[in-house]
This record gives sequence, structure tokens and C-alpha cells, in this order.
Amino acid sequence: MSAGVRPQGLERLSVNQETVKQWSLPELAAGCAAAGIGSVGLWRAPVQEYGVERAARLMRDSGLTVTSLCRGGFFTAREPELRARALDDNRAAIDEAAGLATGTLVLVSGGLPTGDRDIAGARERVAEALSVLAPYAAERGVRLALEPLHPMYASDRCVVSTLGQALDIAERFPAEQVGVVVDTYHLWWDDLAPAHTARAGAAGRIACFQVADWVTPLPEGVLLGRGQLGDGCVDLRGWRERVDGAGYTGPVEVEIFSPALWARDGAEVVAEIIERYTRHVG
Amino acid sequence: MSAGVRPQGLERLSVNQETVKQWSLPELAAGCAAAGIGSVGLWRAPVQEYGVERAARLMRDSGLTVTSLCRGGFFTAREPELRARALDDNRAAIDEAAGLATGTLVLVSGGLPTGDRDIAGARERVAEALSVLAPYAAERGVRLALEPLHPMYASDRCVVSTLGQALDIAERFPAEQVGVVVDTYHLWWDDLAPAHTARAGAAGRIACFQVADWVTPLPEGVLLGRGQLGDGCVDLRGWRERVDGAGYTGPVEVEIFSPALWARDGAEVVAEIIERYTRHVG
Repeated sequence: MSAGVRPQGLERLSVNQETVKQWSLPELAAGCAAAGIGSVGLWRAPVQEYGVERAARLMRDSGLTVTSLCRGGFFTAREPELRARALDDNRAAIDEAAGLATGTLVLVSGGLPTGDRDIAGARERVAEALSVLAPYAAERGVRLALEPLHPMYASDRCVVSTLGQALDIAERFPAEQVGVVVDTYHLWWDDLAPAHTARAGAAGRIACFQVADWVTPLPEGVLLGRGQLGDGCVDLRGWRERVDGAGYTGPVEVEIFSPALWARDGAEVVAEIIERYTRHVG
Repeated sequence: MSAGVRPQGLERLSVNQETVKQWSLPELAAGCAAAGIGSVGLWRAPVQEYGVERAARLMRDSGLTVTSLCRGGFFTAREPELRARALDDNRAAIDEAAGLATGTLVLVSGGLPTGDRDIAGARERVAEALSVLAPYAAERGVRLALEPLHPMYASDRCVVSTLGQALDIAERFPAEQVGVVVDTYHLWWDDLAPAHTARAGAAGRIACFQVADWVTPLPEGVLLGRGQLGDGCVDLRGWRERVDGAGYTGPVEVEIFSPALWARDGAEVVAEIIERYTRHVG
């Protein structure tokens, strides 16, 4: 299938690399292009390993747009040295995003440092880091996309747990510099998230829309239990219509961390994603 | 130690039965009385097994107050037959609470029925059930205490995830009929929970205050991973002061689901709880 001609209904579908992490970058590029998918979300580690310029060329040559780079962040350390190191690492992430020609760097805030019981203070340190990084990113054509993660990650991964909290921080900066990620897996349960989606959309701050379904039981560590679209209890189409209603017109990125998907043939997984996306989201 | 004379600082401490579930009811009564603890929270299944009247007498004879009965609820079924059965079961729970002379029946809402993606609708069914049960409970001197559980339980256990949601439902009823539970394990991450605690306290709706700490990694199924007081990242004393500041003067119930605690000698666990409570909460 030639690049640029998308099967009808798949124009907005982007496959996040982590969803088919059994694939190398060349396999991802070839597999998505062959399936008629026009965009992908990438992760830093495999891009660094392959080389940023080389990855950018591979995507370009395969007719693929990079919708986001995952992920910078982890801003919650207290020690000045660790904080300086986090800022350096995030400047590198911004450079990588610019190298990949994606305008969106996803940021995961970081959890509470060991022994720290002041979650409000930790969130404040996230905002402080953004104040340093947002101008740097903007100069390189990259927008920082602050992602609220489900509250079950609040202590060890991300002190920003709701779209409301993410917006409270993002709104301290110009919308073209700092946006937010709306991810159905993290937000589906929150009765306030619809109103905050409207608030984010009205200000043009929805930088990224990701979809995964919620299934139980959660696995130990709760990181790798995300559900294939349609397998869980999230009203995915309702959420897609909600971000659209808020004025979002960007990609719909499928990001599913699932050992069950990783154990299967990548092309089969992508075919299933297309079918599920069409049935439950698009 | 004679009943009624509490060691200083332990006047408000209540031990929830599930925290030391290695103990039988007589062991719980004897162990708490011996440790100078004046109140306990009980669970329906062991009370039913022992006999409600007999359990009530045991507690009375041991000088123990029953601060709450856990738990009724599970109101989210759609089928009329299942809904009627849930109401019957909750009337029985109210009768049991009255029999134990506790004024507080803790309610866990229930999760989303299989295939249901309408969480707002499920929350509405919780409110409908309360409208039937609240007057029945009030006639028997029992207040229903709606408990928001952490959002990680939203799909399979409790569609009410925040104190704000719980209050939105509770406030449809008189405060003396329907209150809420403030449990640090479920609410610690929520930046809006402090304001809702004030809102609940001002209306006299804090029916129960429970404490447990948050520790990671979470175990598979995420039910049994609660932390001993002081082992995690929750500002427990800050929360106790917060409910006090909201006007709450009732018991502080220690409810920790932890296989590590259950594997130990009950008296040793209770002694540790007293030490941790004094250091981190009281």
C-alpha cells in the first residue's frame, strides 16, 4: 500500500511502538506501512539504540509520521544534582523529538522520592522543571505533553494523577509550549475528566490522545495489564467523540502495554488493532 | 487492663478485625482488651458465623465498642432480580449492625457489571439503592457510610472512587442517614480530597475514618497490598489532623489488608499497631 493513501477510517490511527515492542524499528516501519497505517509513536530507548537520525530517515522513507516521543519527565527528585541530571536528560529528549520531527514529547512526572510524604511539594517540582524546559522545547518546535497517569502510579511513577492536576500545571505556560495527554486507560474512571477534557480542548492543550482498555485483574506491579481495545470496560468511542468535541483533530495513538500482545506475531497484532480501532474507536 | 481505662493516646484507636484476621472473634476481643484498645471494626462474615447476638455480647462483656460493620453495598447490578437480592442482603447487614450496636455500616458500591461501560449509570444505581435503604437503616439507628475506594478498584469493586463522588451521592440524603468513609489508603493521592474532607466534616458526614499506608509494588489483584502505618508514603498524621480540623471527633480505625501481618502473631501485630499509631497518627 503506497504511503499517503490511507484506508478509509484509519487516517488518525497511530500505533505506539510499545504496543508491538516485539518488532524492531525497521519491522515497525515496514509492518505499519504495509497495514496502511500512517503514523507511529516512538520510545526513546529503541530510537537511541537505532540512532535518532537513522530512525527519522527510516520513518520518512516509510511514509510514516511520528506522532509522539515517549518519554521524558521524572522531575520529582529533591537533590539538586539529581534535578540537574533530570533536566539534562530532558533536554536530550527534546533534541531527540526534534530530530524525529515530532512536535510532541510525552512527559511522565515521576513518583515520590523514598521517604517523601509531600505529594503536593513533588507536583510543584514538576512545574519548576517545566519552567526550565518549556522554552528550550519551544525553540526546537517541540511541545511538552504532561501525562496524568492513573492514581495507582502516584507513589512510584507519576504524582500527576488527573487531567485536572495536569492542566493546573500546564496552564502556567503558553498552550503552544505545554499541553496534556488524554489517555483513556488513565482517566476513564474520573467523573471530572470530561469537563477537564473540554477545558483542555478549548485552550488547544490536548497534545496527544492515547487509547487502551481497562481490564482486570491487574497484574503484580500494575504496569503491564492494559487491555486490547474492546476487551475492557472503557467507552472508547465515547472518549474519542469527547476529545473531538473538545476541538481535538489530531492522531489517535494506540498504546497498550500487554505481554499477551507482545507474545504474538506483530502483523497479526496490528491487524487486530485496526479491526478493534474501527469497531470501538474510529 | 480494665475496660474503660485506656492508655493515654489510645482513646480513639479502633482495630479493624480484618487487620488481624488470624484471630477468631474471642481472640480479637481478648487481645484488644488486653492491649488497652477500646474499640474494634467488625466484618459481616465472621460475625454471622459466630452469631450476631453472641458477638454483640462478647464485645460488650470485653468492654469493646464496635465502631463499624464492614460491609454492605454492591449495588451496581442491572437485573431487577439481582438488585432486589442486593437490597435484601443490605437490609440484613443493617439489622446486623443494629444488633452489634454500631451506628455505622460501611458500604462498598460495587463495580461495573460485565460488559457495562457506563460508569456514570452504575453510580446512579448506587444512589437509587441508598434511597431505599437509608430510611430503613435510620429507623434502626444505623447510618450508611459510603466508602470511596481507590480508582484502581473502579471496574471490579467500587465505581465510587473519590470523596467528591461519594459526597455527591451522600448529599442527596440527610446527613444523619448517609455519611462517607475517609480512608487514607484510598484518598491520599487526591489533591481535591482535603477540600472534600472539609465539606464532609462541615456537614457532619464523616461517618468513619480509616487509616492504612500506601506501599508498592502492588500485588496481583491489588487487594492485599496495604501497608502498616509508617511503612509507606501517606502523611497519616496530616490526614488525622485534617479530619479533626473538619470537626470529626470519632474513632480512628486501623484497617490494613496485609498477608504479611496475617502471618504473624496477632498480639505482636496489635502491639506494633499501637506503636505505629502513636508515632505516625495519634
